[in-house]
Amino acid sequence: MAFDLERDFSILSKGAINLVDEELLKKKLKRSYEKNAPLIVKAGFDPSAPDLHLGHTVVLRKMKAFQDLGHTVVFVIGDFTGLIGDPTGKNATRPQLTRKEVEKNAETYKKQVFKILDPEKTVVRFNSEWLSKLGAEGFIRLAGKYTVARMLERDDFKKRFKEERPIHIHEFLYPLAQAYDSVALKADVELGGSDQLFNLLVGREIQREFGQEEQVVLTMPLLEGTDGVEKMSKSLGNYIGINENPNDIFGKIMSVSDDLMWKYYLLCTDYTSEEISEMKEKVKNNLLHPMEAKKNLGQTIVKYYYGEEAAKEARKHFETVFSKKEIPQDIEEIRVKKGEPLPFPKFLLDKKLVKSTSEGRRLIEQGGVTLDGNKISDIHSLFPLNEKGERILKVGKLKLKKIVVED
Amino acid sequence: MAFDLERDFSILSKGAINLVDEELLKKKLKRSYEKNAPLIVKAGFDPSAPDLHLGHTVVLRKMKAFQDLGHTVVFVIGDFTGLIGDPTGKNATRPQLTRKEVEKNAETYKKQVFKILDPEKTVVRFNSEWLSKLGAEGFIRLAGKYTVARMLERDDFKKRFKEERPIHIHEFLYPLAQAYDSVALKADVELGGSDQLFNLLVGREIQREFGQEEQVVLTMPLLEGTDGVEKMSKSLGNYIGINENPNDIFGKIMSVSDDLMWKYYLLCTDYTSEEISEMKEKVKNNLLHPMEAKKNLGQTIVKYYYGEEAAKEARKHFETVFSKKEIPQDIEEIRVKKGEPLPFPKFLLDKKLVKSTSEGRRLIEQGGVTLDGNKISDIHSLFPLNEKGERILKVGKLKLKKIVVED
Repeated sequence: MAFDLERDFSILSKGAINLVDEELLKKKLKRSYEKNAPLIVKAGFDPSAPDLHLGHTVVLRKMKAFQDLGHTVVFVIGDFTGLIGDPTGKNATRPQLTRKEVEKNAETYKKQVFKILDPEKTVVRFNSEWLSKLGAEGFIRLAGKYTVARMLERDDFKKRFKEERPIHIHEFLYPLAQAYDSVALKADVELGGSDQLFNLLVGREIQREFGQEEQVVLTMPLLEGTDGVEKMSKSLGNYIGINENPNDIFGKIMSVSDDLMWKYYLLCTDYTSEEISEMKEKVKNNLLHPMEAKKNLGQTIVKYYYGEEAAKEARKHFETVFSKKEIPQDIEEIRVKKGEPLPFPKFLLDKKLVKSTSEGRRLIEQGGVTLDGNKISDIHSLFPLNEKGERILKVGKLKLKKIVVED
Repeated sequence: MAFDLERDFSILSKGAINLVDEELLKKKLKRSYEKNAPLIVKAGFDPSAPDLHLGHTVVLRKMKAFQDLGHTVVFVIGDFTGLIGDPTGKNATRPQLTRKEVEKNAETYKKQVFKILDPEKTVVRFNSEWLSKLGAEGFIRLAGKYTVARMLERDDFKKRFKEERPIHIHEFLYPLAQAYDSVALKADVELGGSDQLFNLLVGREIQREFGQEEQVVLTMPLLEGTDGVEKMSKSLGNYIGINENPNDIFGKIMSVSDDLMWKYYLLCTDYTSEEISEMKEKVKNNLLHPMEAKKNLGQTIVKYYYGEEAAKEARKHFETVFSKKEIPQDIEEIRVKKGEPLPFPKFLLDKKLVKSTSEGRRLIEQGGVTLDGNKISDIHSLFPLNEKGERILKVGKLKLKKIVVED
């Protein structure tokens, strides 16, 4: 594959929310090609939460993109701060870890990370390696390279300072420690979530202070969790862990809203922007049921972490469980022949579930018709007679039928 | 000497500008006596300025007072920060010192300090001993024990922050390092100049955080230098170094204003407040010439550092040099017999230096009469005919005589 700067740039910047700055990234990519020297691409991870979830995979997938283009990806485990814990003792979510715990967590991390990254091409480093070596003296020198006022520009610090809520001085040291990681690794690029932007930019300044070329900072959007509101996080319970079993991953993805589904497609799958747009268009035009799109999303994501077979199984399991949950045992079956999709009002009339197509249209407009639990919201929607299988159709409050589409 | 809490307290608190707090000091003194356990009294010194001057002796003399009462005095050389230098590279007055330089400075310090403190009873410690051991991790934990807002309460930080002048983050770490010295030493008392009050109080808080009883903070006034305006400091050139030769010390003390002289008496000599008040009263009533009081001050201070003989020599040298400076070689001598002091106007008339006592009085009132360079400002002043020796008398702009008082 010949070097194509614009193509590589477009792959790497896809989905990014901040890129500081474009020109420098292009310059580095070009130089990397010319000198046959891979870029050093760094991303840091918290050592205390070794269960990776889809939120983490957004950055990991971006790392993978760099890796696929031949660059060196460094997975930094931020054990240094983990070994300290929260010095104020006020943050119960940051307990002090032992060396052993950190190493155990690292192993758990690796197992998961290597489901995305190529273990052969991934460098895993602990930042205590160089941060502990700095010593108290080195740390003070590092702290001399940044000012209090600039640190207070960080949004959360600014807010707390204004509201007179305490900021402990060590909190000023963490961004500097993270910045020093970039110095120690001579990072060309640092990747992170958009909430990390400030810290990543500090890295650029500290690199300059140490006489290095500054890194490119590339941040990815935060992925909302299954609740559709909060950032995905283990502590909020709205996460989809990549280490969870395939059925749970699939089920959780199915619980995501139709809107959010597209963001998951963009950030958690290999579908290109164009492919996703096409799919969206199909759903809009009732050529694809959103639930189908979501099942495809679930199957795709499970496939990444557990393979094709497991993904199919997970889908089947979901469909079975879903059926059991909603449907009484003695539900009436209606057997139909496979054929062209039919507009819902007409299908409902054919099967004598409504007295007229206008009753069918009214029921749809009132939200009274669901297929496999998904509300049919458009009177022009088509019943997928072209797909073999069992479907649960609910019409009004009382009529529940199993539609069996047969050859 | 029996234990007398009130007496000891009065000796120790004499001249102090801040004492936080009185009750705790009394409690500690009492407990120290009861348990026969000396208090640990700490004072920190900058490793980069090993030439002690009278300004430093103010605190050293207070250390001595504790030592004389049997307590353990710890002279802390703040080499830790010296080994770091100024990380911003902006402060040329804080160059990075090598280990060797620090040790050399320490030796120079000791030579001088032991002119005041008892070497047998003084513990000299370098704070790098425990601060380097803290490591980066320990330092971050330490920084977690204090907040940004509280640090910004320090006057100079507050001012710079308000004026948007940069404060580098390491500057927040120095007060914490100094505070940790108190933890490492389990200090009962910390002594310092009044400009150190904030830092010393941080020590109390950090000790509490480490589960220790907090130290008593006792600060001494800053001594103005020979210019009478600025704090004595080597960099301002207004200092009197205790390592300077006796003649220079004496001469510099003589250049201090009559007003400031009393503060030197209070803070740099063993004279009690009562003795100083008496002397002041004498000068006020023309029973003691201020220059005499000042020469006594010079002689007293030189004596502390060079012994009685050297002090006398220094005084003689000053008088000689002073004479040489002011007086032409062919000055006319007037020899007089030793006897009762005479009022100046009468003495001037007797020696035909004025035409009448009223001319003598007028000249004095106009500031036209000086003895040994000191203006005679009171018409009732007496010429010290009772003291044998040579004196330079200037009457008006033109008449300069050497008065030789003989047996």
